[in-house]
Amino acid sequence: MTALDPRRAIADLRELDRLTGGPDGARRVCWTDEWQRARRFLRERLDEIEGVAVDVDEAGNIWATLPGDLEGELAVGSHVDSVPDGGWLDGALGVMAALEVLRAAVAERRRRAVTLVDFADEEGARFGRSLFGSSAVAGTLDPRSVEDLRDSEGRPIREVLAEQGVDLDRAPAAAARREPLMAYLELHIEQGPVLEREGIPVAAVSGTFGVERHRFRFEGQASHAGTTPMDMRRDAGLAAARTALAVEEIARRHEGVGTCGRIALAPGIPTAVPGRADLLVDLRHARADPLAEMLAETRAAAHEAAAARGCTVDDSEVWRIEPIAFDERLVAAALEAAGTGRTLPSGALHDASEMARRIPVAMMFAPSAGGISHAKEEDTPEPDLERAIEAFGRLALRVARGEVLG
Amino acid sequence: MTALDPRRAIADLRELDRLTGGPDGARRVCWTDEWQRARRFLRERLDEIEGVAVDVDEAGNIWATLPGDLEGELAVGSHVDSVPDGGWLDGALGVMAALEVLRAAVAERRRRAVTLVDFADEEGARFGRSLFGSSAVAGTLDPRSVEDLRDSEGRPIREVLAEQGVDLDRAPAAAARREPLMAYLELHIEQGPVLEREGIPVAAVSGTFGVERHRFRFEGQASHAGTTPMDMRRDAGLAAARTALAVEEIARRHEGVGTCGRIALAPGIPTAVPGRADLLVDLRHARADPLAEMLAETRAAAHEAAAARGCTVDDSEVWRIEPIAFDERLVAAALEAAGTGRTLPSGALHDASEMARRIPVAMMFAPSAGGISHAKEEDTPEPDLERAIEAFGRLALRVARGEVLG
Repeated sequence: MTALDPRRAIADLRELDRLTGGPDGARRVCWTDEWQRARRFLRERLDEIEGVAVDVDEAGNIWATLPGDLEGELAVGSHVDSVPDGGWLDGALGVMAALEVLRAAVAERRRRAVTLVDFADEEGARFGRSLFGSSAVAGTLDPRSVEDLRDSEGRPIREVLAEQGVDLDRAPAAAARREPLMAYLELHIEQGPVLEREGIPVAAVSGTFGVERHRFRFEGQASHAGTTPMDMRRDAGLAAARTALAVEEIARRHEGVGTCGRIALAPGIPTAVPGRADLLVDLRHARADPLAEMLAETRAAAHEAAAARGCTVDDSEVWRIEPIAFDERLVAAALEAAGTGRTLPSGALHDASEMARRIPVAMMFAPSAGGISHAKEEDTPEPDLERAIEAFGRLALRVARGEVLG
Repeated sequence: MTALDPRRAIADLRELDRLTGGPDGARRVCWTDEWQRARRFLRERLDEIEGVAVDVDEAGNIWATLPGDLEGELAVGSHVDSVPDGGWLDGALGVMAALEVLRAAVAERRRRAVTLVDFADEEGARFGRSLFGSSAVAGTLDPRSVEDLRDSEGRPIREVLAEQGVDLDRAPAAAARREPLMAYLELHIEQGPVLEREGIPVAAVSGTFGVERHRFRFEGQASHAGTTPMDMRRDAGLAAARTALAVEEIARRHEGVGTCGRIALAPGIPTAVPGRADLLVDLRHARADPLAEMLAETRAAAHEAAAARGCTVDDSEVWRIEPIAFDERLVAAALEAAGTGRTLPSGALHDASEMARRIPVAMMFAPSAGGISHAKEEDTPEPDLERAIEAFGRLALRVARGEVLG
């Protein structure tokens, strides 16, 4: 009988990092040889566990199932793919913690089936489409919406996936794999600075933020920077600058987040008053009503800023997703397993966001040192990792035993 | 005896436009065949004037001199080169008005020598170095500072100029041509909206603005747009936005102009808080003291905006020039000739700015429809053009007769 051993999971993470990382960070970009190498390592570890059956679905997700006596199947997992020059924990932590759950579950006598899932292409690093595998399982992947995507070398997604054994048109069939699932649990790093600041080693996650990403286009009049008096200008750049500051204030007031990460001025030369400015605004909130208010107030602020400088403005939606709340009972159980009394929403999206559209889901977060992720500096102090893996294992085994959602 | 005829000058301008313009605007980019075509047209017109001797100096400037009895030589002119897709009046107006001055001067009995000058490469459109010919005459052109310049096809400036008969290393010898000059006068379009707004057909120009062009680099911390709470951000983009708004306020308060025409955010993606922002600030004022105050206040505002968001900032000079005041007696005479009571400074630089470093200078401005220049839409109502050319001719002939600076 093997008890759950967080240090073994950490050793697996170190070994994976040694195999597929380097001086610039993790290189497990999905649909590449390095990613396949990471998956081979995972399958070798899975093969060591007695009674586990491994399968790959139509979207390229790996499912490793340990059958059980109780009804229903619990899925635990995350993704081994990374961004280029990524960190050693993003995704991999959840997969190796799930591996440890399987190892411990072998010794449990009365429990549900427990399945490790390694979702394909969570990051979308090669083709720009994230949550590929989990959206196929959730039934929200439309092959037509991605078939025109190409990688940076111009290779079409369909061709690259075919090389990796995935037929894009058949990927939605992976949705059938969710039928027996009664819940999905995922451990991930926070990728933000909150838990570190508060000194909390592990927390329950209440859901993922909704996102409203819009492009605001301000139109004024380009003119000569030397000959146009200040009171005769129609400066689209200043209207955008004013709006960016308003976004900051609006996000603070609603306790959400708001970011202007990109702005483009035209003509974009130092000797011309900007006649046009394109501002990308990304608004996020855990709840739908405040998020809608944030968008409405941002629009009002943009119109006010534009009018004050003789400009016009309109906005177009770039991308949006509604806030997704995780299952209340599972979140309560996660909070109890964490033992830290801390629940927080996730500002980033995860495979859990897709799964939560269909089945009960909860997540747990370990802290991120310095709040840094998607970089080689990504790290979590080892005692915090141990505590988080242990708490996650406790939660998963309770659900497996039918003590939660029984 | 021929009196000054503004309509003849306008007819010359129309003919030049017909020869060297097109549906996209003027194509007289310096050091090109189209520019040589414009100059051939000018020389044909000059050849029709009795007693004019034409010469080209070492920097490629054309000097067409009508000798006189009184001591000293008056230069009048501008440039026939244009930006690509430029307007029909920028530069050409001053040259054709000067041509008309020469024609009228033939009939004047007691006067100084009068010389039309067509400066080479005022716009700097091909190699990015403006005021080439006039800076050579003013003695401020250093061939070493331009010898590495290449055009958009990668051709070096030295090679292209040699094809056009100009030896770059010998260009500074053109400075000798200014020795006999007692003054320089130039008529130009305003390239701004002020005179049109005020309904003024012609005005005296008091000088050209000084310019302080600086790049402000804000450094904060790039982080995830979803997972970084507002109060833990170090957003360099917002520090830059705040500074851009401060530049507007500072310029208004000092009655100068201030422009942020270019900004670059890094990483520059919608899902990341900007960790770095480069803001190009262009400040202009007619007087040195307020200009220095504008720069000092902009620096203070940038530091304050950076500190408020946990960022640092430093600035580096991109380009600067001191304000240049024209000759008081000539400006007074230009004001009298204009008869509109309006004097204004020029926010743009002109060949007159270079000449004013060495000899007495004045300029006059005709209005620009809609304030537009450097575009095919560039225009001035014909009655205003007539009035401006007539006033300029009156000024030039008074100076030629020794009634001003006598």
